[in-house]
Order: sequence, then structure tokens, then C-alpha cells
Amino acid sequence: MAQQFASDNYAGICPEVWAAMQDANQGSVPAYGEDPWTTRAAEAFRRLFETDCEVFFAFNGTAANSLALAALCQSYNSVICSSFAHVETDECGAPEFFSNGSKLLVARTDNAKLTPADIRALATCRADIHYPKPRAVTITQPTETGEVYSLDEIREISAICRQLGLRLHMDGARFANACAALGCTPAEMTWQAGVDVLCFGGTKNGMAVGEAILFFDRTLAEGFDYRCKQAGQLASKMRFLAAPWIGLLETGAWLRNGAHANACAARLAAEVAGLPDIELMFPAEANAVFLRAPEPVLIALRDRGWRFYTFIGGGARFMFAWDADPARVDALAADIAACTA
Amino acid sequence: MAQQFASDNYAGICPEVWAAMQDANQGSVPAYGEDPWTTRAAEAFRRLFETDCEVFFAFNGTAANSLALAALCQSYNSVICSSFAHVETDECGAPEFFSNGSKLLVARTDNAKLTPADIRALATCRADIHYPKPRAVTITQPTETGEVYSLDEIREISAICRQLGLRLHMDGARFANACAALGCTPAEMTWQAGVDVLCFGGTKNGMAVGEAILFFDRTLAEGFDYRCKQAGQLASKMRFLAAPWIGLLETGAWLRNGAHANACAARLAAEVAGLPDIELMFPAEANAVFLRAPEPVLIALRDRGWRFYTFIGGGARFMFAWDADPARVDALAADIAACTA
Amino acid sequence: MAQQFASDNYAGICPEVWAAMQDANQGSVPAYGEDPWTTRAAEAFRRLFETDCEVFFAFNGTAANSLALAALCQSYNSVICSSFAHVETDECGAPEFFSNGSKLLVARTDNAKLTPADIRALATCRADIHYPKPRAVTITQPTETGEVYSLDEIREISAICRQLGLRLHMDGARFANACAALGCTPAEMTWQAGVDVLCFGGTKNGMAVGEAILFFDRTLAEGFDYRCKQAGQLASKMRFLAAPWIGLLETGAWLRNGAHANACAARLAAEVAGLPDIELMFPAEANAVFLRAPEPVLIALRDRGWRFYTFIGGGARFMFAWDADPARVDALAADIAACTA
Amino acid sequence: MAQQFASDNYAGICPEVWAAMQDANQGSVPAYGEDPWTTRAAEAFRRLFETDCEVFFAFNGTAANSLALAALCQSYNSVICSSFAHVETDECGAPEFFSNGSKLLVARTDNAKLTPADIRALATCRADIHYPKPRAVTITQPTETGEVYSLDEIREISAICRQLGLRLHMDGARFANACAALGCTPAEMTWQAGVDVLCFGGTKNGMAVGEAILFFDRTLAEGFDYRCKQAGQLASKMRFLAAPWIGLLETGAWLRNGAHANACAARLAAEVAGLPDIELMFPAEANAVFLRAPEPVLIALRDRGWRFYTFIGGGARFMFAWDADPARVDALAADIAACTA
Repeated sequence: MAQQFASDNYAGICPEVWAAMQDANQGSVPAYGEDPWTTRAAEAFRRLFETDCEVFFAFNGTAANSLALAALCQSYNSVICSSFAHVETDECGAPEFFSNGSKLLVARTDNAKLTPADIRALATCRADIHYPKPRAVTITQPTETGEVYSLDEIREISAICRQLGLRLHMDGARFANACAALGCTPAEMTWQAGVDVLCFGGTKNGMAVGEAILFFDRTLAEGFDYRCKQAGQLASKMRFLAAPWIGLLETGAWLRNGAHANACAARLAAEVAGLPDIELMFPAEANAVFLRAPEPVLIALRDRGWRFYTFIGGGARFMFAWDADPARVDALAADIAACTA
Repeated sequence: MAQQFASDNYAGICPEVWAAMQDANQGSVPAYGEDPWTTRAAEAFRRLFETDCEVFFAFNGTAANSLALAALCQSYNSVICSSFAHVETDECGAPEFFSNGSKLLVARTDNAKLTPADIRALATCRADIHYPKPRAVTITQPTETGEVYSLDEIREISAICRQLGLRLHMDGARFANACAALGCTPAEMTWQAGVDVLCFGGTKNGMAVGEAILFFDRTLAEGFDYRCKQAGQLASKMRFLAAPWIGLLETGAWLRNGAHANACAARLAAEVAGLPDIELMFPAEANAVFLRAPEPVLIALRDRGWRFYTFIGGGARFMFAWDADPARVDALAADIAACTA
Repeated sequence: MAQQFASDNYAGICPEVWAAMQDANQGSVPAYGEDPWTTRAAEAFRRLFETDCEVFFAFNGTAANSLALAALCQSYNSVICSSFAHVETDECGAPEFFSNGSKLLVARTDNAKLTPADIRALATCRADIHYPKPRAVTITQPTETGEVYSLDEIREISAICRQLGLRLHMDGARFANACAALGCTPAEMTWQAGVDVLCFGGTKNGMAVGEAILFFDRTLAEGFDYRCKQAGQLASKMRFLAAPWIGLLETGAWLRNGAHANACAARLAAEVAGLPDIELMFPAEANAVFLRAPEPVLIALRDRGWRFYTFIGGGARFMFAWDADPARVDALAADIAACTA
Repeated sequence: MAQQFASDNYAGICPEVWAAMQDANQGSVPAYGEDPWTTRAAEAFRRLFETDCEVFFAFNGTAANSLALAALCQSYNSVICSSFAHVETDECGAPEFFSNGSKLLVARTDNAKLTPADIRALATCRADIHYPKPRAVTITQPTETGEVYSLDEIREISAICRQLGLRLHMDGARFANACAALGCTPAEMTWQAGVDVLCFGGTKNGMAVGEAILFFDRTLAEGFDYRCKQAGQLASKMRFLAAPWIGLLETGAWLRNGAHANACAARLAAEVAGLPDIELMFPAEANAVFLRAPEPVLIALRDRGWRFYTFIGGGARFMFAWDADPARVDALAADIAACTA
């Protein structure tokens, strides 16, 4: 199949990750995380984040997000999120399942960014026991629409969280893209800005499978190893869930991959700017481009073999991965131009 | 680290699986199972099992077993198992978690095999609503003690299950070892013997991660795709959870790996037979050897650098994987002999 | 405390229920529903509903609704409801808790009535495994805003449910008020109109505590006795949860109580009609009156000692119970008039 | 039906409770616990227990126990109990359901009393994440076999709990009977002896329905009001769940009822002592008598119209309630004598 941009999950394993897996595939090694690869991967995270955080490895983002939220909440608590949030729209009720009932309180906004005002409104609209007690806020960085919260925005969100007694979770399924976009350090974007727990996505960053959960407040991580085990998220051959992170973090590939994907998105956005009938729905700040276009244009594009989703706002979504080929981006842009002509 | 036999999870990825992952790591492929590798892996299972079963892929055995049991049960149902069963002793309450409360009814027996009499006793001891209603039976094949149910034993168990309205689940974390041991076909050991659902373990068979869930009665699989997704067991880059199976099944490596591991267990068992103070706790029918030995012998063995667990019955467990080195098995046997001398 | 109309839960036990409890409080009687009162109460329901339905007794509406929905759904299913629905706004995540994660899909409408169009839109907007699969619809009759679905409206809803493979649940916390309002039979409003499961509220109808769950399709009730027990909803001295229903149903008090409460609501609505600055927010079809009034008027009313909630749409809600005193209704109306003058 | 002693749930409502309900059934009163009866009942508990504990009211013992344990545990924790414990044998998996998976670790002993040695053994046998982490101990006082833990026994249990970081829950379904048996104060038997949470049974003590949950360590009660609401255990007309306690506690009926029931058990035990073929299975320290007798004797007794269970150890259980008629006890004793003659 010629390269497609329907999802950044269409990409394979990047070379640095592959090499790390190959390295790890040597000999006999203890299971369940008692191996040197797991220790080394956790250390790589602590070094990258410049803090002695607790690090756990899970298989995918749905589980990582849900487990992290379950660690913050009791079943009668609620989690504030945007109506665009992946936990709300694309995880099939996983947060409610893992937490045994924690409700998502959804801010219905025009874009995927949650604001302090949204949080305050949802957290304070009810204060009776007939409604789940808010306990956490989750933001996606970058958002599901490809926008990036600025450091100031995150700090303002964490400030309101502290004020209201809420914990702040960041769904970083594409965390590397956000870092590349802001040009800031991982520490600046997370614990220094008041984030309590981060889910750092490995799959979209070039791994086959895997997500890391970082607790910057270690007390929140109590029992989290048991929680992962019980929920079917403890890998027996843990080295293969850990080593890929070494490949990404120690080589700098995590950031290079994110930056490359972002650049491809920017490239497409630039190339279609000014085309008649084509509108950029959200600023292309990370690795996504959402284009609003007349239905016939979308049909014509599909006829030319392009795959894409239209599930958010009816626009066509293009997502760029670590392996996006600029020539293929150009081909897409050319086809869009041709279809609108 | 010199090769150890503490667990068959200490082994890495076998060459056939590695090659399949390498093949799969080409280009752009749809996510979430809409890819050719997933289709091909599921087909390989159907061919191997000679039946049009439903096939799902999960990350690990804890999740696979728990999801399968949750599909068979409501929260107020119970599952009959042996007191040795991995679901009871080593999954940190995962079956109860995934099913939202299904209780395990545990037969306390001398070895890990469940008998029709155990099942009948547990299924009929209570018939009031104050006690969870039995709905499923789970057996581990081979058992946690390295024994293998004969086809007749399985058929007798499934017969009593049918009679009592119970579904039969097989935890096949080491399914390949059982097939190799019995020399039967996968079909004979499962659906032809009355098994409703099988969890076929890939990790211990040579994969990095992965388990397959096979529903022989397709009606039991209704909604199972949603169940996997909600429980954090749907891989986005599914090809990497599917392709390894192709490597195992299409090449026959699954059975070779199982047979090799079994042969190493038999080798050790033969080599230590007759040693003073050393007793084989369970017949070494699959890839495990449990040795009862005086404490000083165990200490001496550990001093010589050998790792092993003593959690079942206080004996030393040795587990052999696809990569077990016969020379190293011999070295272990020699050290045991030396320590008992 | 002078009689208040803030909630129909402010009322006590009606005489017929009290007498039935007194009758039941004689001698020694088997526990857990093996008593004659339970049988007789269940029979009274079957007679009233003119069908051989399955009848269960639970302690309150939150549990009854949640258990009924849990019986219809798996954790990965979803339930369609109005944004005004009690299950969404006032049960602290109970439906999600009892079902282990079934998500409520909420129709955001101007009033509390769900329409076939709402149902179709929510049931068909997604058809992928990343979103919970719709399995049930719940309607509240009368609604949380005191409106009553007509028989035709219910039939249209059940028709779309059948078409889409959805089950229909009716939250009848004030079912008697709806029957009194429509002047129809319980059968007409439920199974004859396509309702699968009804929660019939006893508390607001004159009991101390208690709700009945009626399954018109008996196959849906499989295991429901176990479900109730496990969820802490099986009364040991069941006669005291059953006998009150005898008091309500056999004497006709259930309908008289409902009709009286409705009449008081209509009385208030009539008395304030035409008052300046006072607007009836929803038609007063059952036992509730929602009044929109300027803030100073509400403050003045509170200063005169009246209690009421303003949680729905900012209006003042008045709810009338079986014991509402018409003179006190008139006093309220007079105070409203005085405050607006 | 002539009075039976199959269960203390066969009794009705005692006069003091009935009078309190009648008192409470006056006029208009706020719902959900914002009423004077609820405040007064909670105060009565604090006075009785001589401490400023947190008090909650639930509908039944299954829910009270399960909610209390869920408040102490996360899903990956475990609860240590006796194999005779009601939570293990008669609550249909409720503890697992409410806690979303907390496993019961069961001490298999000859009687229903848990010892410090049992607790230590179960709490320390495993310390790896593959097994649920022990977090609480539950004891039933009096036990399911009618025995009573001495104050010293409770203190020793709580001492080992503190040492191992475990919380201590007391299932006091028949708490009043235990107090009457020991002649101690409620404070001495609970918080002064190291109990963290008590479920105080009202139903068996003379109420229609109801259980109180007392947290002596208030920090453990955080969010428990929400937990009750979400789990369907918040009564809307709370006064009717609270007032009965006033009837029991303020009049001293709770203790009189317990003492009377105990006396009836002692009476029967004394009357059958020395009868041939009749053996007292457990010391009759509270309100239960378990008799081992030859099968023909049991059949003969049933033929004479007596109802009783034989579920624990195969013996006949007789339970005496607040209303047990001594003449009827004598009649039972006479029939037993006649049947053994």
C-alpha cells in the first residue's frame, strides 16, 4: 500500500526502536520488569524529565489513560475533559470501566482545548452527593485536533486544578510532537507546569506497542504496579516493552520523529493554503491537518486512492507519522489542488 | 546473564517470530486490525484448528483469560478452577476485576488437575442466590505443575460441564507444549473435546508479547471486540500483535518450540532421576520440572548461580523455553547432583 | 415543619401503606422473599399490569434503574437518555457503577423528552468499536420536568428501538402520576406500548422505601435475583419491602395518590397563571410545577419560608406528593402572587 | 405460621422501632438525610459509642459490609476473612462487586473465629504483585457460628493488623447480641479494641430494614456519602431508615433485644444438654444454637413442623430473635427430646 496519512498508527517501527529490540533480544533475562532494560528505560525517562518520577509501562494508550485516571479517582469521582477528548470519544468507555464508574464531565467547546473557565464551570456546577465529585482533569497534548497548549495555558489549568483540589492528567499520546512544537523541555511541559501524571505515547512515536505512565507526585503511584498487573497491563517479557523506549529516548529519536511528523503537517498546510474551497479547520501546530472541503472534493480525493477520516467536525484529517515521506505529502497536496480545481 | 530456567518468560523472541515482525514492518498499513497481517494470522489459526472459530488478539495471558471468562459470566456468576490455577494464584484478582465480581470457586486438590468430581462438587454444593451461580470452568493445559490433561480427561470434564450448564475455558498459556506432549491436533484437544474458548499463549511460545483468544462457539464471541477495546487490549498497530503468530503458525515453529522445551524438561527429569534426596513432585509431562530437595541443596544450587522459584509446594521449579540450551540443562543436572552429593 | 413542596420525598408513608406494614408485622415469616406477602405483592403487580411479568423489589430508584440497565447491557454497551434524565444528572454515576462502565449517551434537548430522532441520531452516529455499542434506551415517565409521554410517543420510541435493536427501559419513579395523567392502564403505558422493563417507584407514591422492577420480557430477567443479591438489594425481611405494595395496589391508593398529587400541581399552575413575571417552564402534566421568576421574587418566597430547588433551568420547582394539602398549595400561590406584586 | 427459629430474619419489627417509625411519620421533612431524625440517630450512635465517629445508614448488611470494605481497599487489594464469613459464603460476590475485584483471602479453620496466626499467615504468604495486596481484615462479631470474640481476642487481632498495615472491619450483623454476651460497652468492643469500621446490624436487632456503618477513624470515611449514593444505598426518605435506630438506641431496646435472644439460645442449649445423640457444635454464646444430630432425628423434627437450616457443618441451626417466645423454645426442646428418645 502506498503511504497513507489517515492515521499515525499506519506507520511501522522506527529504526532506533528496532535496533533496541534487537539488542534486547539476547539471552535469558528475568521477567516482569526485573531486567536491566526496564531499569535503564525508566532511568532514561527520569533523565529526560529531570526528576525522580515513578515510571510504568503499559501496552496502549487506552489502558494507560484509564489506569492513570483510576489511580486518581474513586468510582464516585468524576474527570473533567473536553468533548473532543480521546478518553470520551474513542476509548469505548474504558475510563469508566477501569475506574468502576467514574464519570467524564464533558466541556462542549468549539475546539479541543479545555480552558480554566471550562474547568471551573464543570467543577463547581454541582456540590451535592447526587452528582459525581470532580477529582481530576485530563488534557490531551497535543489535542485531538492537532493544537498545542502553550506552557502558559497548562500553568493556568494546573493553577485552577490546585485551587479546586483537582489532579491534572496529561494524555500525551503524541507528547513528542508537542515538545517538538513548543521547543520546550519535557519537564517544562509537565511537572514544572503542574501536571501530576503523564501518559507518554510510544506507539505513535515509532514503537510497535507501548505507553509510559509517569507520576511526578510519587504518592499518587502507590499500588500502581498492582493496578497494572490486575488490569492485564504487566508484560511478562517486559524487556520488549522497555527496550523500545531506550531506542527512542537515548538516541533522541523521540524528538526527531515528532519534529519530522510536525514538519510534514506544516508542509501540507502550507501547500494547500489559499486553495479555493479548502479551509484549515484548526491551526496545524503538531502532526495533524484538518481540512474542510466540499463533499465532491473529498470524494474525488478518495477516488484518487487517499484514505482519511472525517469524524471530527466533518473535515478530512491527515496525520503524519515519523516515517511520513515529504514527496508523498507533496503528492497529496497536488491531488487536493487538482480536486479543487 | 547465563541462561536460566526460572521461567519460560526469561526467553526472548524466536527467529521465526522475529522474521515475521521484520516482514510486517514495511510501509503503511491500516490500524486496529484492518490490515492483511491480522487477517492472515486469524486464518492461520482457523486452518490450524480446522474450524471457523472467532479469533482475537490480546497483549497478555492475564487479560486474555480474564476477558474470556468475563465474556462467559455475569458479575454474579462464578468460575470453577483448581487451587493451583494461575487465574487464582497469579493474576492479582484480574478475573474478578474484568468480570466486575465473578468469584472463583476453588477446588483444593493435591495437584493442579481439576476432575469431573471436583466440578460437580463445587457446582452443586449451593443452589441459592446467596452464592454466585457457577457458569464456567477453567482448566490450564498443561497445568501450572507441568502435567497434561489427556484427551479423555478433557472430554470427561466437558461432558460434566454440558450436563451442568457450564462453559469450558482452557488457559493455554503453554498450549503448544501440551500439543507436543500429547501428539494430538489442536482441534482434538479443544473444540473436538468440548472446549468452548481457548486462550493460546504466544509469549511463552516465542513471541515478545501476545495471546490469542479462540471462540469455537461463535455466539459466545458477541461483542468481544468491544470488550477488548474497552479493556485496553486492542492494539493500534495490530500488525505487530498479529504477524508474530504468522511466524509461529505458518512455519510450524509453535510446535517445534513446544517440543523442544518439553524435551529439555524430560532431559533434566531423566538426569536427576535416582539422585538421593531429589524427588520429582509432578510428572514432567510438559516443559516444567518441579524438584523437592532439602533446603541446603536448594541453597547450594542458588550459590552456584541458579535461579528458580519455590512457590508451588515448596519445590524448585525449572521451566524450559523454546531456546533452552541442552548443554545448560546438563550443567544444571550436574550441579544438582553435585549439591546432593 | 409546615408542609413543603421542594420534593415529593418530603412526604411520609400513606395510610394504606402503613396499614399494610402493620398487617405484615405479625409473627414469624420466612426471609428473603419466601413469604406470602412477597408472593401476594408480585401477584398484585401481575394483575395490575394484566401480564405474567417477572417482578423484583429493590430499595430505591437509583438501584432499580441501574440494575435494570445492567441487566440489559454489557460494560461496553451504552444507554441512550435525555440530558435531563435522573440517571444522568442525579445518580452519582450509579448506572456506570452497576454496569461496570456502560456509558450514557446523552441527547441534549430543550426539554426532558427523548424523541425517535434523538434516539436514531445517537444510536447511529458511530458504528466502530472505539465507541460503546448502544443497547438500551431509557425514558422517564413522567419526565424530570413533569411532562408525560403520550402513548403514541412511547410507541414511536419503542418502534425505533426495535428497529435499531435497542431495549426500552422506563424509569417510572412517578409512574402512578403518569397513569393518572393519561388515564390509561399500566399495561397500555408499558408492555403494550413496547416497554421491556419498568422501574415502578414506590417511595414517591407513598411508601417509606421501595421500588419494583418489572420485566415484561421474562428472558431479560435471567439471573436478576442473583444480580439484586450481589448488589445489596435483597431485603432479608422482604415482607416489609413487599407488603407496602399490597397497601398501594390492592386498595387503589397508588392511583389515588398519583391523581391527588397531579391535581395539586394543576391547582398551583392554574393559580399562578397570568401572574406578572411568572412563567410556567414546562406544562404541568404530572405532579411538578416549574416556575421561572425573577431572582428577587425567588428570594422573597424563600424569605416567606418556602423551600424549593432551582436546579433545572434556573426555575423554581414545586413537587406535590400524595399528602399535599390544597390549602397549603393555595397559600403558596398567594405568596407567589404577593411576591410578584 | 407458628414461630420458627430458622433465622432471626423471620421476626418482625419490635415495638420500640415501630413507635419510632410512627413518630417519624409526621408531616413534611427534608429528604436524603437533611432531616432531624437522621441527625438524632447519628447522635445516638455517637453517644452510645462514646466517640465522635462518622455514621452512615445503608439498607442491608450485604451492602454495608461491601461498601465498608470497598472504602478500605482498592480493586487490587485483598481482605482477610474466615471461611465461615458471611462475606465469603452468603453475599453472592458482593464484596468483589462493590470493590471492583478485591479478593477475599480465606482462612480455612475449624470454627468461624479468625486468629492472629491466620491473619499473619495469609497476609505474609505472598509479597509480589501477582497476588492481591492485603489491606483489610474482617471479623464477624458474634461469628456465623454463634461464638463471641473476647475483648482480648479482638485486641490481639487489631494489634497484628496495625503491625501489618491492615485495617480492621467488624461485621456486626448481630452486634447487639455480642454486647449482651460480653457485658461490655460498644466502645470497648470496637474502637477501644482497635476496630476501624463497624457495620452495626439493625434488621436482626428489631428493625424492618437497615444497617449502620460507623467509621471510628474519620479519615477513612472520606467520600463515603458519595459511595453510598452511587451504590444505591442512599434512602430518599431517610427518616425511615434513621428513626428506627432512635427507637432501638434511645430506649435501650437494642441491648434488651440482644440479651433476650441470647437467653433463648442459652435456654435451648441447656434444655438439650445431655440428650443422647445431640451434640452442641459450637458454644452457644450469642443467639444461635447449632446441634449435630442423626439424620433421622432431623427428619423427625421437620416432620413435627420445625424449620431450620443445616448449611454449616451439617448441623441444625436455630437462631433466636428479639421476639423469641420462651414457651416455643421449650416446645422445640421437648420435640428434640422426643425425637431422640
